[in-house]
This record gives sequence, structure tokens and C-alpha cells, in this order.
Amino acid sequence: MSDADDREALERGDRLTPRFDRDGLVPAVATDADSGEVLMLAYMNAEALELTLSTGHAHYWSRSRGELWRKGATSGQVQKVVELRLDCDQDAVWLKVRPQGDGGACHVGYRSCFYRVAELRGGDVRLAEAADAR
Amino acid sequence: MSDADDREALERGDRLTPRFDRDGLVPAVATDADSGEVLMLAYMNAEALELTLSTGHAHYWSRSRGELWRKGATSGQVQKVVELRLDCDQDAVWLKVRPQGDGGACHVGYRSCFYRVAELRGGDVRLAEAADAR
Repeated sequence: MSDADDREALERGDRLTPRFDRDGLVPAVATDADSGEVLMLAYMNAEALELTLSTGHAHYWSRSRGELWRKGATSGQVQKVVELRLDCDQDAVWLKVRPQGDGGACHVGYRSCFYRVAELRGGDVRLAEAADAR
Repeated sequence: MSDADDREALERGDRLTPRFDRDGLVPAVATDADSGEVLMLAYMNAEALELTLSTGHAHYWSRSRGELWRKGATSGQVQKVVELRLDCDQDAVWLKVRPQGDGGACHVGYRSCFYRVAELRGGDVRLAEAADAR
């Protein structure tokens, strides 16, 4: 196949052919299926992606711990997957999830890991808690 | 400072101290500020992040072209940044943007790069165009 055919298949085809990076990972964005809020950005290897699709619960690869990680296995914050999308060049995943259990997606205790807004104040950038973080 | 102090500053502090990867990049998720739709996932180096904050227009680092990229510079699909957030460990960015110009964020022609849903059909995974992709 030509490069153009490869690109056509990648972008327009119906085959799942993720383009993992040199560590075997793709970034995965999880949003709340109801509110649309971005909850977290994590990484998936082939096994995490396969398990997420086959079980309907989000699985990730923990880069810090170097292990497969079923979200909520210890925290109880299981993510039920409503929809899983691939982007145009199949190197990123978008999960729409319904978080189960009390508490948030973030280990710091917030609903979302993105609880701080960067603001320019007189030339300096400062991080401030988002108004809707809690 | 102890590791615990470092972590506290990273997660709770008001200083922007992004944890770039070994290529000097962090992933950045852009969502539509009005609809909440995830439009794309791209990467920022320190310069792209700084320019995004100082100009209010999304800048990224193109890994394929190896260059700084002001979104919309050639396509006209400028992204006006409404809010920029960092995640807990400051290794991911969330941009809420207002896309300017006609057409979509995706070079394939869609509003979002995430125009395909992965579906399990009899044990096989297939990609299908999302119902709301157009």
C-alpha cells in the first residue's frame, strides 16, 4: 500500500490500529459522560485498551508504578465507559465515563484532576483553584 | 525540601511548574468552551504554553513537523483560549477554547478529531463514525 492508502485507512477506515508511542502507550482523556467535564488524562497500553473495551470499565497503564491499573481497584472510583473514541490518526483516546462511587477521579480529592486554572497576573502566571472545582 | 513538600507544592501550590516529558512536551486537551466536546489532543512545549498564555490563542508543538504551531496559522481554525487548566501533577493541560473560522479543528474536515467510536461487534472492534460527528 502507498503512504496515502495507509493514511486513508488510518483516518477513514473502520479498523482499530492504535499508534502507540515508543513506550507502547497512547494518552486517554476521560470526560464525565453527563457533565462533559474533563476528569483526567492517563495512558493506555494495548492491554489496557483491550480490557477497557471488553469489560466496559476504564483500565490504564500507570507510568509511575509501571503496572496495569483498573481505575477504582483500590479507590472504588470505578469508571464505567459509555463510549470510547479514537482520534483521526489513532494516537489518542477519548473515554466518556460514568464515575461510580463517592469522591472524585483525582487522588488529591477533587472530582477532576484539572482543579486549577492558570491565570496571568501582572505578567506572572499563577494557579488558582477553579470556581467549580468542588 | 522533602519529597512530600515537593508533591504538596506541585499539587496544591500556585506556581506553574509543568512536568514536561523527556521530549520537553506535555499533552494538551482542547475542548469546545460552549459544547464541552473534546476537539483534539495535541502537545505543548514550554514555548507553546507560554505563547498560549500570553496571546490567548492556542499554540502547540507539532511532533510530526518538529515545529511550533499556532493553531489556525494556515487553516484559519484559530482557537481562542477561554481557560487553561493544569492537572494535579502538572503533566497535562486542559484548554477550553472558542474555535474561530469555518470548518473544524480536525485536518480531516470534522469539527473534532474524535469522530469515530470504537464498537465491539461479535468480539471484533470496529470504528464507526459518531452520530454527532458532522
